Amino acid sequence: MSETISLDQLNAADAAGFLAALGGIYEHSPWVAEAAFAHRPFASLKDLHETMRAALLSADDAAKRAVLNAHPDLAGKAARTGTLTADSTREQSSAGLDRLNEREFDAFHRLNGAYRDRFGFPFIVCVRRHTKDSIFAQFEQRLKNDIATEFETALDEVGRIAALRLDRHVDASDRLPVHGRLSTHVLDTYHGRPAQGVAVELHELSSSGEGRVVATATTNADGRTDAPLIAGRPVPIGRYALRFALGDYFAALGVAMTEPRFLDVVPIEFAVADAEGGYHVPLVATPWSYSTYRGS
Amino acid sequence: MSETISLDQLNAADAAGFLAALGGIYEHSPWVAEAAFAHRPFASLKDLHETMRAALLSADDAAKRAVLNAHPDLAGKAARTGTLTADSTREQSSAGLDRLNEREFDAFHRLNGAYRDRFGFPFIVCVRRHTKDSIFAQFEQRLKNDIATEFETALDEVGRIAALRLDRHVDASDRLPVHGRLSTHVLDTYHGRPAQGVAVELHELSSSGEGRVVATATTNADGRTDAPLIAGRPVPIGRYALRFALGDYFAALGVAMTEPRFLDVVPIEFAVADAEGGYHVPLVATPWSYSTYRGS
Amino acid sequence: MSETISLDQLNAADAAGFLAALGGIYEHSPWVAEAAFAHRPFASLKDLHETMRAALLSADDAAKRAVLNAHPDLAGKAARTGTLTADSTREQSSAGLDRLNEREFDAFHRLNGAYRDRFGFPFIVCVRRHTKDSIFAQFEQRLKNDIATEFETALDEVGRIAALRLDRHVDASDRLPVHGRLSTHVLDTYHGRPAQGVAVELHELSSSGEGRVVATATTNADGRTDAPLIAGRPVPIGRYALRFALGDYFAALGVAMTEPRFLDVVPIEFAVADAEGGYHVPLVATPWSYSTYRGS
Amino acid sequence: MSETISLDQLNAADAAGFLAALGGIYEHSPWVAEAAFAHRPFASLKDLHETMRAALLSADDAAKRAVLNAHPDLAGKAARTGTLTADSTREQSSAGLDRLNEREFDAFHRLNGAYRDRFGFPFIVCVRRHTKDSIFAQFEQRLKNDIATEFETALDEVGRIAALRLDRHVDASDRLPVHGRLSTHVLDTYHGRPAQGVAVELHELSSSGEGRVVATATTNADGRTDAPLIAGRPVPIGRYALRFALGDYFAALGVAMTEPRFLDVVPIEFAVADAEGGYHVPLVATPWSYSTYRGS
Repeated sequence: MSETISLDQLNAADAAGFLAALGGIYEHSPWVAEAAFAHRPFASLKDLHETMRAALLSADDAAKRAVLNAHPDLAGKAARTGTLTADSTREQSSAGLDRLNEREFDAFHRLNGAYRDRFGFPFIVCVRRHTKDSIFAQFEQRLKNDIATEFETALDEVGRIAALRLDRHVDASDRLPVHGRLSTHVLDTYHGRPAQGVAVELHELSSSGEGRVVATATTNADGRTDAPLIAGRPVPIGRYALRFALGDYFAALGVAMTEPRFLDVVPIEFAVADAEGGYHVPLVATPWSYSTYRGS
Repeated sequence: MSETISLDQLNAADAAGFLAALGGIYEHSPWVAEAAFAHRPFASLKDLHETMRAALLSADDAAKRAVLNAHPDLAGKAARTGTLTADSTREQSSAGLDRLNEREFDAFHRLNGAYRDRFGFPFIVCVRRHTKDSIFAQFEQRLKNDIATEFETALDEVGRIAALRLDRHVDASDRLPVHGRLSTHVLDTYHGRPAQGVAVELHELSSSGEGRVVATATTNADGRTDAPLIAGRPVPIGRYALRFALGDYFAALGVAMTEPRFLDVVPIEFAVADAEGGYHVPLVATPWSYSTYRGS
Repeated sequence: MSETISLDQLNAADAAGFLAALGGIYEHSPWVAEAAFAHRPFASLKDLHETMRAALLSADDAAKRAVLNAHPDLAGKAARTGTLTADSTREQSSAGLDRLNEREFDAFHRLNGAYRDRFGFPFIVCVRRHTKDSIFAQFEQRLKNDIATEFETALDEVGRIAALRLDRHVDASDRLPVHGRLSTHVLDTYHGRPAQGVAVELHELSSSGEGRVVATATTNADGRTDAPLIAGRPVPIGRYALRFALGDYFAALGVAMTEPRFLDVVPIEFAVADAEGGYHVPLVATPWSYSTYRGS
Repeated sequence: MSETISLDQLNAADAAGFLAALGGIYEHSPWVAEAAFAHRPFASLKDLHETMRAALLSADDAAKRAVLNAHPDLAGKAARTGTLTADSTREQSSAGLDRLNEREFDAFHRLNGAYRDRFGFPFIVCVRRHTKDSIFAQFEQRLKNDIATEFETALDEVGRIAALRLDRHVDASDRLPVHGRLSTHVLDTYHGRPAQGVAVELHELSSSGEGRVVATATTNADGRTDAPLIAGRPVPIGRYALRFALGDYFAALGVAMTEPRFLDVVPIEFAVADAEGGYHVPLVATPWSYSTYRGS
């Protein structure tokens, strides 16, 4: 299921073609696509998504539970033995679940077990909306749910996974509301103009203290980066640092500064709580001052 | 020389008492104090300092060179074998030279050797005005000096060391201008008042990536810390981070925030270039924005 | 009653001397001072104030009403014919009630009449805590009170007037909490230091559109004015504008700016709601940007 | 010449049609358009503008001088008697030259005379790029020029007038760089989101103290105004005030504030020096603080 297909093609497809395209939207559960097939044509991607989702939600509890049980453990045996679906592999990799250290791996193992023991199905979360830290936070929090609540929660996550898979595999004139956006902007209030040429790094932070660079860019003549730092996908819930090479920028313009520079690399640490939200985090700066805010 | 003595006592002392008090102001060079003794009484600490300094500077080059050579290597053999003077021990410890890792120790060893080879006397720097990083920067930079310039530079550093020792050991109504100041202040522009109860940490950063906490405090009803983070001594030249527990502050006041909080611990990274300067680095903040600047 | 007297002198005074000093603290009601005389000595100015206030509040309603009726109308006949007490004259002048235009005079006349008709005593407000605008606002608002509430409110205002008269006429080691404070501070974040030499004007604004300059100052080496713009008295409740000659400041330092300058005179308009509060309103600025906030 | 014509139509027009369309681009000087006619077709509006301009600049001094002399006095006799061309009428009105008070009218009269006496031709300035104040400033400044410099300056202004007339009357796929832009944006850092529903006024200020409202708008869900406050034309050089109804905005959201509000209507005063520039002047605010800067 690595190809994309257009909504028009889906509407024109026969049952076999439809299933080939959408059978994997719900993990190991092609019957959901089969049930949706009868409702063709779909006016929009939204219509298709809601139809498939309705098919799942109108099934009986046993069928729903089977869908939940069709999901692999996060960072579990299937991942290690390479027997995940292509979509699951890509998804788990997006949150770094294929790069766990020993301690994290053990924590996942322990939490997966505790969760299964409590609820009788695997822990399911739409990992593309999360960082490792927020997956752990979800685990801890959802383990406290009662079984009925958690059953609903797990089905919601299945729906989110399906929406992102449809977003990836189906071309349509409408889009599902599954994308967030993280962007920045540097204003130079020493010269009174956008700051061009500022190197920016976006780090994803983790509670274990390690960060990893998830985007780098240099500001253009408008003080912005040519493309948002994150766009076209959810912004994983978690903590981030932007690091701006402000000192190098002013030095390149010949602005006199002390040695060492009062401000050199400026860090801004913030968190994303809404994976589909817009996060604009600008830097308004001189060699001696700066401000930032959640902008728009 | 761990006691303090008043300027009045010094002015009333006999030669032996004077020498006992001030013989160590210039490292292993009691003759500087002896030369100053004749100029009693001293109107001020400044007068005493300038008199001793003039005694050194009016000596011939051989005598000056002997003073330079009386100084121990930084992080050198004397330090390792515990044969430093008490003042030198305290001074080298202030910059962390007693806590070097292997790599740093080797670097000091190499630079000490290169410096001695080039100039014929040990590398002298007033370490209480420096961090490890800025000592390395001084080393690199001063190795490029010509011999005459560096001879003067080394004598200047000897004078700075002497001034700080006088500041420590002599009580007088005037003070030498050897103290810097680093302070902060938190304004809560969500409620329009000083932020009381914000936990603040001051970290000294190092180019090797490690930082160490050099001060902690909690803001009082005026949004300030009860005492400056650094005062009564030079502010070591180097890079620092202030870390403010802003999220906890707003949470304690019941302000609604997302989970995770957009802003939680706010870091401000800056450098001190003037060890005797005043650095006021305030935080003006809401749960969604902040600004900082070099204030006064 | 233009002289000041010390608390010690009051404690040592005989009845005639005591009355001569304090007979006018409550308008045309020397009996309040007489009643307090028996309670000498007073440990503090606060003690004296509370004792006099208790004497008034423990009197019967007729006596209290007589005190209210002893007060002149604001901007009324007594003011025009010059028969106010010296204290009342000074107080009414502080809020500009001696400089009303025709329209304002008529408004006062009308409101005084409406108030007396409704409550049976003159409108009393501690005018030193107010601007013309806030006196009008008080008028409108208090006319809506029921009679019992307004009787209490009027007595509270009488107490405030008395406290300010005691603050003016009696020297003591303690002070009554009747002073507010309005101050400013200019930070130059282009150069990273306090802005010295910025001309500042404080205007009291009025809803009629006219303003009047109530203080002028120039910032010193610390970016502050040598004295607060308002101190040692209440800050009259009302709207204000600070106007900073920022463009001239940067021009004097040779900073290149466009012609005309993007920022020249920077206005900050704000209101004081708490006459005894501390209002610090700083300007943090470059030639291209500024910020302000209620500081401390 | 109130209609617009397309570049294609101009390229296809005969001499009479071409002249009818463009004869007035240079004031009372149709020969400039006639000279350009031979160079058809024009690849772009820029090409047309440069061709006409070259025709003027390659003429002899007498012809150039005749063009200068074909211009009316600013706020002069032709304006009063209604004998201006339609374009001149519109242009002079844009800067308020049809609404001068007595004092201003006299000043124009005096300056027009002084200028003519000195240079032998009328004072010409592209008034759509100016406010009254900046026209006076131009007058004062250009009166100091030597005759050769001022002759060139006047021809430059004629070219600017022509460019704006072409921009108005000719449709083409390219645009001449004659438009500036003035916009704003309000960020609410109390709630961490764009401020929707803030009423904004743009005042053009004048040194005589009067201002006039030149645009009003209310911020939308993105904190911006639906259209820039000024766009599609030059931003007249001069001083402006933005006034934001910040207090009403926060009050409507139920945010607790003092009475009167610390911040109510927030004024930002700034100047435009570059009529074709982009001026973005945002407000980043809480009920207790705000900042602004020249943004992008």
